[in-house]
Amino acid sequence: MHISELDTPAILIDLDIMERNLQRTAEYARTHGLRLRPHTKTHKIPALGRQQLELGAAGLSVAKTTEAEVMLCSGVRDLLVAYPVVGRQKLERLCQVARKADVTIAVDSLAVARPIAEAAQAAGVEIGLLAEMDAGLHRVGVLPGNDLLTLVQGLVRLPAVRWKGVAFYPGHIKDTSETGLAELDVLRRLVAEAIGHLRKNGFAPEIVSGGSTPLLWESHTVPEVNEIRPGTYIFNDRNTVLSGACTREDCAATIMTTVVSVAPGRVIIDGGSKTFSSDRLSNSTEVTFGEIEGHPGSSFHKMNEEHGFVKLPNGPGEFNIGDRVRVIPNHICVAMNLHEQVYGIRGGRVVETWRVEGRGKLQ
Amino acid sequence: MHISELDTPAILIDLDIMERNLQRTAEYARTHGLRLRPHTKTHKIPALGRQQLELGAAGLSVAKTTEAEVMLCSGVRDLLVAYPVVGRQKLERLCQVARKADVTIAVDSLAVARPIAEAAQAAGVEIGLLAEMDAGLHRVGVLPGNDLLTLVQGLVRLPAVRWKGVAFYPGHIKDTSETGLAELDVLRRLVAEAIGHLRKNGFAPEIVSGGSTPLLWESHTVPEVNEIRPGTYIFNDRNTVLSGACTREDCAATIMTTVVSVAPGRVIIDGGSKTFSSDRLSNSTEVTFGEIEGHPGSSFHKMNEEHGFVKLPNGPGEFNIGDRVRVIPNHICVAMNLHEQVYGIRGGRVVETWRVEGRGKLQ
Repeated sequence: MHISELDTPAILIDLDIMERNLQRTAEYARTHGLRLRPHTKTHKIPALGRQQLELGAAGLSVAKTTEAEVMLCSGVRDLLVAYPVVGRQKLERLCQVARKADVTIAVDSLAVARPIAEAAQAAGVEIGLLAEMDAGLHRVGVLPGNDLLTLVQGLVRLPAVRWKGVAFYPGHIKDTSETGLAELDVLRRLVAEAIGHLRKNGFAPEIVSGGSTPLLWESHTVPEVNEIRPGTYIFNDRNTVLSGACTREDCAATIMTTVVSVAPGRVIIDGGSKTFSSDRLSNSTEVTFGEIEGHPGSSFHKMNEEHGFVKLPNGPGEFNIGDRVRVIPNHICVAMNLHEQVYGIRGGRVVETWRVEGRGKLQ
Repeated sequence: MHISELDTPAILIDLDIMERNLQRTAEYARTHGLRLRPHTKTHKIPALGRQQLELGAAGLSVAKTTEAEVMLCSGVRDLLVAYPVVGRQKLERLCQVARKADVTIAVDSLAVARPIAEAAQAAGVEIGLLAEMDAGLHRVGVLPGNDLLTLVQGLVRLPAVRWKGVAFYPGHIKDTSETGLAELDVLRRLVAEAIGHLRKNGFAPEIVSGGSTPLLWESHTVPEVNEIRPGTYIFNDRNTVLSGACTREDCAATIMTTVVSVAPGRVIIDGGSKTFSSDRLSNSTEVTFGEIEGHPGSSFHKMNEEHGFVKLPNGPGEFNIGDRVRVIPNHICVAMNLHEQVYGIRGGRVVETWRVEGRGKLQ
């Protein structure tokens, strides 16, 4: 089927670009001796998790218990839940997952870790734990130094769990601009000191897990890090381009829409916040929601749920009702979460249809 | 089941508040002789569409073909697709819907209307058409005056469709502040002149359909309007409160989350952009994503996909890991679209579980 036969809006994945992104990252990790544990929240598709594993990924990352359940179908043997799992139902379900794959959870408090240990003990499984460290994002994680040491000292005493190392997420570093590189230098010192402090006190982490897509190619320069968890790199998006970690030609995912209304100086496309999400650019003050391929002067500057507002520099003659318009989204992960299925394409033809199995998994 | 037994994040609908919102609006419409045609994009649940019809709604509104298919289960006899439907697949499906209910589509060009007429003719059904007028939002719609007249003159000549009137959406008026009231005055004149111009030229609209939730209680003051299409009023949200159309006590929907990380001055809740959407407030420059019930000093100021960042005025003692926190969202319609199911509650007990049947319907 040609892509022109698809109804819109629809997410198209250029498989040649996606495979190049997967291979390039797998090779980078291999070259630098880093375990690659892709975060599957970007694609949410077990078949793509399987491709990552076949290319040498050491395991997969997920954010939620329900995502872990879905991702079992990839054949994964080693799952990291990169989120503090809180709540009886979630823990009972995760212990079921732990019968089929090794499960590790990143935690930042004993208040979170204790119920995990109790649930694991009750279910007769072992759960791995990483101590989550705040590397500057101030989201989750304890401060490096004594707080991290105290957390690790608590974790190793718990039954039915195994402390495996340290995790952090450098999401506060958005790019490798001068500012970004200065922040990266701070990060390098912080990680080296934090892990050094643990070692000095007799706690040698087996895993030091960091890394994000914007900092992907700098991962090997952060001391002690031996595992990386990029997610977006499989598709890339406008945020990744702006971060400097890829070029526009590395963006595998576009959202195909249709022009439904034309007026002087503007058109409306049939995708808005329900199609793209309302995420703004993460490292720019510019308020735009995507880049229209082939129309560099246009500006996708506003959206309602079903309407994308596109300003045109060249008057309305540029577009007609029914024209198909492909848009590179700001943030592909949240867009994937809005679509029931996505289409893998090669040379304008649809060659794969994937259900986004992990879409809408909130718990 | 008590709500404390639900896993989080979860949308809770307080049924007493929802029913009061439904009844109040139904009574307002009745009192002022307005046909009420609720926009179901807010709830996306056929059972709630049925409640609206039972309370006297003249029909229902949807935005998409697939939403129309879903909403047939409400028993609706009269469906308005308040969106320019473009594309062969959508039109073929909508003609199937038109065998089961009266279907009307709001269009703003003959380029959109002609294929609708052709599809209706081919399928042997009749489709109603409203001429969409731009009342100031500059989204879809032709300009009032001669452009509107020309559109109507074109519509009445098409086969297999019936021109029924005029639609507009006053989404540019966000509230009834001084500015809003001045804009409302402009709107009143605009609508009166536009419809007057049509009548003078021999085109008397059967339906003049306008209205939104922020302007709900002013609908009867806009001349010629005989149908209103509010959506959000069934639940209300922070945007509705800020618009002045309701109070906080009229917000039926809250999103229940769990505290998963606690640090000095902040907590992280287990809901972010995948739970709430990243919609900012529509009529404020304040960057917050919800209001935490019972914690007026807190600020839900930032989110990632699974993390809600909440700043605290009173230090970390206010919250503990595992605490349940209920949040009034900025925009309930986009949040509903992210949840597979939602829970109807009375007095802390779950009495209804509804699948959000219209969730993720993009085409």
